[in-house]
Amino acid sequence: MSKVLIFGHQNPDTDAITSAISFAYLQNKLGVEAEAVALGDVNEETAYALNHFGVKAPRVVETIGNETKQVMLVDHNEAQQSVADIKDLEVLAVVDHHRIANFETANPLYYRAEPVGCTNTIILKLFKEHQIDIPADIAGLMLSAIISDSLLFKSPTCTPEDVAAAEELAAIAKVDIQSYGLEMLKAGTNLTDKTADELLDADAKSFPMGDKNVRIGQVNTVDINDVLSRQAELEEAMAKQNADNGYDLFLLIITNILDSDSVALVAGEPKEKVEEAFQVTLDNNTALLKGVVSRKKQVVPPLTEAF
Amino acid sequence: MSKVLIFGHQNPDTDAITSAISFAYLQNKLGVEAEAVALGDVNEETAYALNHFGVKAPRVVETIGNETKQVMLVDHNEAQQSVADIKDLEVLAVVDHHRIANFETANPLYYRAEPVGCTNTIILKLFKEHQIDIPADIAGLMLSAIISDSLLFKSPTCTPEDVAAAEELAAIAKVDIQSYGLEMLKAGTNLTDKTADELLDADAKSFPMGDKNVRIGQVNTVDINDVLSRQAELEEAMAKQNADNGYDLFLLIITNILDSDSVALVAGEPKEKVEEAFQVTLDNNTALLKGVVSRKKQVVPPLTEAF
Repeated sequence: MSKVLIFGHQNPDTDAITSAISFAYLQNKLGVEAEAVALGDVNEETAYALNHFGVKAPRVVETIGNETKQVMLVDHNEAQQSVADIKDLEVLAVVDHHRIANFETANPLYYRAEPVGCTNTIILKLFKEHQIDIPADIAGLMLSAIISDSLLFKSPTCTPEDVAAAEELAAIAKVDIQSYGLEMLKAGTNLTDKTADELLDADAKSFPMGDKNVRIGQVNTVDINDVLSRQAELEEAMAKQNADNGYDLFLLIITNILDSDSVALVAGEPKEKVEEAFQVTLDNNTALLKGVVSRKKQVVPPLTEAF
Repeated sequence: MSKVLIFGHQNPDTDAITSAISFAYLQNKLGVEAEAVALGDVNEETAYALNHFGVKAPRVVETIGNETKQVMLVDHNEAQQSVADIKDLEVLAVVDHHRIANFETANPLYYRAEPVGCTNTIILKLFKEHQIDIPADIAGLMLSAIISDSLLFKSPTCTPEDVAAAEELAAIAKVDIQSYGLEMLKAGTNLTDKTADELLDADAKSFPMGDKNVRIGQVNTVDINDVLSRQAELEEAMAKQNADNGYDLFLLIITNILDSDSVALVAGEPKEKVEEAFQVTLDNNTALLKGVVSRKKQVVPPLTEAF
């Protein structure tokens, strides 16, 4: 077996970065020459976690075929979310917690997916199955991913397994989940030196709904008014993105990670679908979405339904 | 959760049938209302195993949507090998040891694949992970699948994990692996009352190679001459299948399960690709393939290379 590179999805979040690190550590212990790499720079939340536990960020790669032909994927499987030259590589293993699509191999492989809230919850099981101890710094990074993906257990994607895994990892990492978790999440909400487009692009995905093209971005904050103070600038940038990229409707979900509510900011048409989906009335293009924190589970389904 | 049906691939072999039974047993113990079903009648080898351990064959289904919408797949994932209405169903879980292709879900799921020789080797791990005891009859069926897929550990697809699993299961089932295994394999080699087409169709797959369409069938026997005594009849049926179905080349691999050699019987063109692939000279359209028992690992790759 040649050297194996391990990486998470493009626009990496904390789970994508740290699951590459934790799974590469496990593979090394199992005798595989593996290295964690990343398909993009770490965000500020991830940088906080890496710094806290004294671990270097994985190096960023554009393509992989120039280094090796064998890879393992974490926190994703779909080709369009993966490295540019994925079609030329052999995928030896996948550990993931998403749906499976646009994924095909020529040979049998190791594939481990479970419908839990975080890839690192599954990787913790793999450590236990192989009876390999997790060092405190790796455990801290794995815990950080669970906190990130579950917004400190408040997301509806969080399962009892994720909570139990976080508690187990916190004991190894010797950190208090609530205080560390809040500091880490806050580190990811430093939005002041970001342009409007950076806020819109940081975590945005496109969805075809009916015959419309809907763009849904999300930003986390500890004070929604901080973001809304830039409403005019954001609306202008959303309108320009709509025109430039053919989006019909742009929905920015501004999530308060402290009280687990969100405000939707809307540009484009048909805006009434947002009102219908969430049973709200838009006021100055905004509406409070009580208890909404998950795009995957709480925004896309009702909006799809409305269309 | 509504009732869940669990099944292996079309033209089921012993692993497809028994992994549905063993995984359904495990799911029942985990509190899921699950039933093993089959996408075709059991073959004679599987019937021998079921009879030996006193377990009824799963009922055969043509479609599933009329009964339930939720399924779990074992020993396959590709849509064309699955139930006819798979696209209308939700796949909750997959346990498999093949490549992944033509498989897509809308939601996150449980997916467990490992590059081992038999699905039941993986299912044994799942029993242990959940700390659920395996009854003797289920253990016997799981052992039968490993013996079948590995041709009593002689196939190159067999891994040390498969051998260890078989030994563990044999201890629970209280059978001698060699004597039971040989009797079971022999039960699958009763070819005398089969038509030529039944022999050709029992375990056949099509492969595009270069610009040709190659059909490769395989039959197991304890005496290759038994099968070759029907060579003229077989060649006629192969030529007719080639003409009727647009195959260019038909390769029948007749495998002696006792000495782990095969004889290739060839109809159609270009026959010289067979000579090239296996470095043999055809004599009366046949050639001995020393040590060849696995279509997946020992026939398809060199033949693909030759084309």
